[in-house]
Amino acid sequence: MGRTSDAREKVLGAARTLIEGRGYSALGVAEICKAAGVPKGSFYYFFESKEALALAVVDEHWAGQRRDWTRILGGDGEPLGRLRQLFEETEAGQRAVQQGCGTVSGCLFGNLTLELSNQTEAVRIRLQEIFDAQVDMVEAVVAEARDRGDIDVTDPHEAARAVVAQLEGQVMFAKLYNSTERLGPLWQNCLALLGAH
Amino acid sequence: MGRTSDAREKVLGAARTLIEGRGYSALGVAEICKAAGVPKGSFYYFFESKEALALAVVDEHWAGQRRDWTRILGGDGEPLGRLRQLFEETEAGQRAVQQGCGTVSGCLFGNLTLELSNQTEAVRIRLQEIFDAQVDMVEAVVAEARDRGDIDVTDPHEAARAVVAQLEGQVMFAKLYNSTERLGPLWQNCLALLGAH
Repeated sequence: MGRTSDAREKVLGAARTLIEGRGYSALGVAEICKAAGVPKGSFYYFFESKEALALAVVDEHWAGQRRDWTRILGGDGEPLGRLRQLFEETEAGQRAVQQGCGTVSGCLFGNLTLELSNQTEAVRIRLQEIFDAQVDMVEAVVAEARDRGDIDVTDPHEAARAVVAQLEGQVMFAKLYNSTERLGPLWQNCLALLGAH
Repeated sequence: MGRTSDAREKVLGAARTLIEGRGYSALGVAEICKAAGVPKGSFYYFFESKEALALAVVDEHWAGQRRDWTRILGGDGEPLGRLRQLFEETEAGQRAVQQGCGTVSGCLFGNLTLELSNQTEAVRIRLQEIFDAQVDMVEAVVAEARDRGDIDVTDPHEAARAVVAQLEGQVMFAKLYNSTERLGPLWQNCLALLGAH
């Protein structure tokens, strides 16, 4: 079984890299298998379809990101400090990818949202669930900061949505201009959106 | 010449609709010609390549949007009122598309940014120019509002970038959740980003 589960990881990794570089729509299963170095039969052993693969790529990426967000946002420090750390680690992550492969990859979920949300209903619903979860995690910290009197927010849920939207918008520009410096003002903008004192 | 320029418009219109629905990468020239009802020869008479067509679609969309933004942001009212009108008309535009075709189409430029920015350098540069122009237009109004003492902003250019990023982020969510209600809080978020009094 070692060989087959290895093949699954190879396909997932290749698909992730190809989707980040060229998007999902233009990819074919044959190309993914070639990049992964596995026969087409292995692909269909693990994935029913290209859509099933897209869902697996999304799920795997979210599993890692949720772990990071939980560690950062569920930490012990002051709530605003944790939120700031989230932005700083996001910026550092984008910078690491840029240094490695030359281009800012942006947010996999945002990329797929704009590429696919009118096409692949299963992926769209999964992406909604992920962004809902992100907003919930940010909202918990925003509510904590509000209860301490650090910020002045009437609707923590709406404020969390604004923060995540600002993050997605700025990451999109970081990708377009291939510049992680675009992410520098994120924290000041977040403070403004939250009416920080 | 009447017939040929008609064909160009047909190709542009069909490409625009197909790109909004399914993205750019998965489209083929044959499919675009079929949807436009023109022979493939006509396509290559007007467009050197699929990329040239993408640029023409982007340029045509921006020509219309720039006209709207210039009318709105260059108007006579108070600067913040003009900015508010921009958000309201954006929301109304997304609502009109949703009512017409059932889905929120989002922002053509944002969609193409996330789909193409690592692939098609010519499109990427054009999209950069467009977002630069949008930020400049918003910046002029922000600077005006600051000079009147309506808002408290140290860097109007950075503030304008934050406003446009917020707009793109929320329009992305409107598309993902197929809900123009997502655009409702845009104006309040904009005021917060600008430190409005």
